[in-house]
Amino acid sequence: MIIHLNKNLSNQRVEEIAQQVKALFYTKDDFAILITPSALQQIPAEIEKDVQAFWPMKNDLQLASKSYRSEKREVNIGGVKIGGATNQVVLIGGPCSVESFEQIDSASELMLELGLSTLRGGCYKPRTSPYSFQGLGLEGLKLLDQMRTKHGLNVITEVRDATQIDEVIEYSDVIQVGAKAMYDQGILRACAKTQKPVLIKRGFGSTLQEFAQAAEFVLSGGNENVILCERGIRTFETGTRFTLDLCGVAWLKEYTNLPIVLDPSHAMGYAYGIADLSKACLAMGVDGLLIEVHPNPKEAKSDASQQLNYDEFRKLVGELKGLAGALNYQIV
Amino acid sequence: MIIHLNKNLSNQRVEEIAQQVKALFYTKDDFAILITPSALQQIPAEIEKDVQAFWPMKNDLQLASKSYRSEKREVNIGGVKIGGATNQVVLIGGPCSVESFEQIDSASELMLELGLSTLRGGCYKPRTSPYSFQGLGLEGLKLLDQMRTKHGLNVITEVRDATQIDEVIEYSDVIQVGAKAMYDQGILRACAKTQKPVLIKRGFGSTLQEFAQAAEFVLSGGNENVILCERGIRTFETGTRFTLDLCGVAWLKEYTNLPIVLDPSHAMGYAYGIADLSKACLAMGVDGLLIEVHPNPKEAKSDASQQLNYDEFRKLVGELKGLAGALNYQIV
Amino acid sequence: MIIHLNKNLSNQRVEEIAQQVKALFYTKDDFAILITPSALQQIPAEIEKDVQAFWPMKNDLQLASKSYRSEKREVNIGGVKIGGATNQVVLIGGPCSVESFEQIDSASELMLELGLSTLRGGCYKPRTSPYSFQGLGLEGLKLLDQMRTKHGLNVITEVRDATQIDEVIEYSDVIQVGAKAMYDQGILRACAKTQKPVLIKRGFGSTLQEFAQAAEFVLSGGNENVILCERGIRTFETGTRFTLDLCGVAWLKEYTNLPIVLDPSHAMGYAYGIADLSKACLAMGVDGLLIEVHPNPKEAKSDASQQLNYDEFRKLVGELKGLAGALNYQIV
Amino acid sequence: MIIHLNKNLSNQRVEEIAQQVKALFYTKDDFAILITPSALQQIPAEIEKDVQAFWPMKNDLQLASKSYRSEKREVNIGGVKIGGATNQVVLIGGPCSVESFEQIDSASELMLELGLSTLRGGCYKPRTSPYSFQGLGLEGLKLLDQMRTKHGLNVITEVRDATQIDEVIEYSDVIQVGAKAMYDQGILRACAKTQKPVLIKRGFGSTLQEFAQAAEFVLSGGNENVILCERGIRTFETGTRFTLDLCGVAWLKEYTNLPIVLDPSHAMGYAYGIADLSKACLAMGVDGLLIEVHPNPKEAKSDASQQLNYDEFRKLVGELKGLAGALNYQIV
Repeated sequence: MIIHLNKNLSNQRVEEIAQQVKALFYTKDDFAILITPSALQQIPAEIEKDVQAFWPMKNDLQLASKSYRSEKREVNIGGVKIGGATNQVVLIGGPCSVESFEQIDSASELMLELGLSTLRGGCYKPRTSPYSFQGLGLEGLKLLDQMRTKHGLNVITEVRDATQIDEVIEYSDVIQVGAKAMYDQGILRACAKTQKPVLIKRGFGSTLQEFAQAAEFVLSGGNENVILCERGIRTFETGTRFTLDLCGVAWLKEYTNLPIVLDPSHAMGYAYGIADLSKACLAMGVDGLLIEVHPNPKEAKSDASQQLNYDEFRKLVGELKGLAGALNYQIV
Repeated sequence: MIIHLNKNLSNQRVEEIAQQVKALFYTKDDFAILITPSALQQIPAEIEKDVQAFWPMKNDLQLASKSYRSEKREVNIGGVKIGGATNQVVLIGGPCSVESFEQIDSASELMLELGLSTLRGGCYKPRTSPYSFQGLGLEGLKLLDQMRTKHGLNVITEVRDATQIDEVIEYSDVIQVGAKAMYDQGILRACAKTQKPVLIKRGFGSTLQEFAQAAEFVLSGGNENVILCERGIRTFETGTRFTLDLCGVAWLKEYTNLPIVLDPSHAMGYAYGIADLSKACLAMGVDGLLIEVHPNPKEAKSDASQQLNYDEFRKLVGELKGLAGALNYQIV
Repeated sequence: MIIHLNKNLSNQRVEEIAQQVKALFYTKDDFAILITPSALQQIPAEIEKDVQAFWPMKNDLQLASKSYRSEKREVNIGGVKIGGATNQVVLIGGPCSVESFEQIDSASELMLELGLSTLRGGCYKPRTSPYSFQGLGLEGLKLLDQMRTKHGLNVITEVRDATQIDEVIEYSDVIQVGAKAMYDQGILRACAKTQKPVLIKRGFGSTLQEFAQAAEFVLSGGNENVILCERGIRTFETGTRFTLDLCGVAWLKEYTNLPIVLDPSHAMGYAYGIADLSKACLAMGVDGLLIEVHPNPKEAKSDASQQLNYDEFRKLVGELKGLAGALNYQIV
Repeated sequence: MIIHLNKNLSNQRVEEIAQQVKALFYTKDDFAILITPSALQQIPAEIEKDVQAFWPMKNDLQLASKSYRSEKREVNIGGVKIGGATNQVVLIGGPCSVESFEQIDSASELMLELGLSTLRGGCYKPRTSPYSFQGLGLEGLKLLDQMRTKHGLNVITEVRDATQIDEVIEYSDVIQVGAKAMYDQGILRACAKTQKPVLIKRGFGSTLQEFAQAAEFVLSGGNENVILCERGIRTFETGTRFTLDLCGVAWLKEYTNLPIVLDPSHAMGYAYGIADLSKACLAMGVDGLLIEVHPNPKEAKSDASQQLNYDEFRKLVGELKGLAGALNYQIV
């Protein structure tokens, strides 16, 4: 159950109540929001007088649920709005990994050329082998930071595990919680303590309910700036790298109040399908797209097969802008 | 390997050659097309003089593959073209099951009202329980047949197993091989002997390669009028009924030469997501859509949760026509 | 709901009642067994006086469920008992496909040498490519029939689709409904009309509930001789061919009353794991095993990688007999 | 490629070589072991004279592979050997979560009563909801530590994310890397720097190759004490909680050199199947079992449905000892 307490209760009283109903809580404006286990379905008599409003819940999809807030939440990424009532679709582009100043600077210029606002680039790569390229780490983060200053772009980069979370919070405009880290409470709890936007990728073996509950870890700590990202789930089909779950996106739109970004690049795993999938996502109605582009995909140090080259990316962005126009969306 | 023999060889010579290279074959126009196991990579010297052209293949995706025929095949459904170079998208609508004259007649009128050409309706339902409604059988087929005569609609209906294949061929314009029957060679081999269009649904546990190979059973018997239909695969996610595999559709578009129809209704399993998914499919570029609509979904004898009512369907078709216009497609 | 009517009711009365409660029915000994959709939870007043006993059901797992019959059913395969209270484990061996008289005769002699009673061999192979070996068909069935006469073995062979069901019923002691045909009602309904034992393999994309419901098609037609066979499901893991679902077997043992056979050969897909998996199945407590063995696996026309050679098979059967002794089972 | 350099090379020379071949390395006894990306297939001429032995590899399953070391590795858990040539099977028991002194003390006494050596109990629970019981944290670790002192048991407990790794290393005899943390490099890299045994659970969405590669992160840092634990994968089947992958265990036994522990409790998710699955695992040949037991499962704060009560556990251990005797294993 979610409970809005009356305004201006003392901290002590809030804590008393929270303890009584075994709730997590955070303070917003001038009142406290408590979230109890969903088993609680009625307000105890002793606290009734302190309660402004309350929402019993069927399960632990609570703060992120439509039954609590029917309108989609709006998140502000360095001045660019995503979600809410805006008709903007944020097209996040950039290479899989930050590899060098030249590479990321060139990608930044491509973003600017196409009127896009947000640059991606991985610094801590969650590779499954210790013998592969692991990312430039802090050096990469600093290169991204240079791009913010030099080009005025917002940047998003992935935190691989809890040991880099402070650095990633410091150097990024959006903290990306990667698919392999979706259950990582060390990361999620740290994200809950900042106000930076957090983009959580769905684990490729995670249910929609678990995905939405990962957002609850951040929301219940008081950071309301959460974005969900579907990037493909692992199925028996191995002709493509993963399976983009658009039925799942329909579910998320029906049951959650969070902005949704789609990542066709990781789902497909091959450049040939990215354009079609991007159009599908746009037409379906999503809040953002995450597409990998590299100056020379064949030489990329990670995900070589799925990154578009510049000409493919330019062509795709052009087509997406056309489609967006017809649908009354604006790509930024 | 696919081999086009020279024109006007004697039947006896064709059979000799086929036996020598262990090939299936059929005759088209005035020459024979042989398909050997893909292990064969070179033309034997003895038959070289009889060969017009040949295509070595990497695997048993042969007649359906882009490496044999780079252009998409065109199929004619009772005068309506699907696939090929047409910009038409065939929107097949109708109830899950044919339930009565009134019900299917009403659905037919809805199709006509919206300018659509093709009506669906199941007569032999492949239910997983013997204690559920099993379909009207032959009586249902005859009702569909009345709709062809009365309203000039093309009809598509499912064959559940090989025992009804002759009836379904007789009464339908497109034979639908259902997801649960995708491997049914009794059906596929019977479909190979007619020239009626065959729409093969992907088994929900079937790989893309197996799906394309199901088409090979029909194509290699001489029926080139095959359409593939993606309708969702079974994954660990049970929040939705199945998972529509659009990455797989990108794969099919890249590697096969067959028209592709998408069935968002069965994938989603719930009415709320059908509109979004239909738009996604259309924007991606597909040749047809299969959407379930029922005069009173709550009373439907099968698939009650996923069928749209008439107003939802009208609204969706309107939106799809708008989107189609922007993309230069025409919905028929 | 399952209803046992009183003994010796007239056929007409039985049919009236069945129609009233929308039930399937069959007659056993001197009374009728009706099975209604599970939605029916109470006996209508009008028929109360004709009812001997009844079992309301939670879902359409009815005749096969433990809540109807708590003891495991016993099936008689040509004189060899499987299931029930016997401590026998039927080890079914033989090649994937019947390829020639020499091959199947040799396999038969191996069975006899090891004291085993039941021979397998496929005649109608459900291959996913039309360009692969499709089985010897009727010729193969006749070879199996020779083995029955010559060696006194029971034989089990697969029906691929409804077009061969009559032949398979005629020539086999156990009708095998293959994994790809598990939903094939043409086959299941034909099996319901004979009294021959039917072994139903779980579809690799089928849920346990659907699997058990496939048995309901046969049971509700009056053939109580049904055996379930788990043979691996399709998952994201492709290092092995399929994933043998022993959690699922535990579920089947908990909720159904049918004998259970395990097929480690098809699950694993590679010879190296068969021995370990066979022991696991035996220790878990199953009623039978199905293991592929071929005189020369490398030359096999199908499933070459997973068939054991004779020495491997002899060694495995020896180990299984040892383990069976310790567990108080007897391998036949 | 794995390279054993000659003995007693200078640190400087080792580092030069490692840099040249882009290798990770660690020192064992008096020589260095280098592991390069698997793309390297030949020893460069310049370093040939410094090389004692080398193993080219097909992929990044290297130190854990049978092609490097054909015998199974032995790991020492507080004096109890697991793996190697021992015939011991370590049966790890205990509750899902440490809940109180009384609870864990009682479980410890049960272990002693049954002659078992190793106690499990979670302190940092990787729950998918922030509103569920999250474990006692450090307080729980200290309770486990008391059990070591008081009862002489070895203890194993899970690290949830990198923020608790130091504490878990300090208080446990075996560090458990949970299924949701299998890709967590913060944890894996910390485990690589200790010599404590590490039990890595397979992610429920992880391939066998990825699972084995998680072990490479620990091994390549110089900690050779790695144990693999299969605990069920997520599939389309939801009748059981997960699907225990014994085909996968056969694969691990064939291709890796690490001891293997099986966790039927988490795979099954229900108490009723645990006994059967445990016997299956034991008969298959595994190095350990992990079984949850709780003094009062219905009151358990996590995983209530799958924990055995004491009587069930006693009965199961008795049966397992009987089976172990027949197979010449010893349960400790």
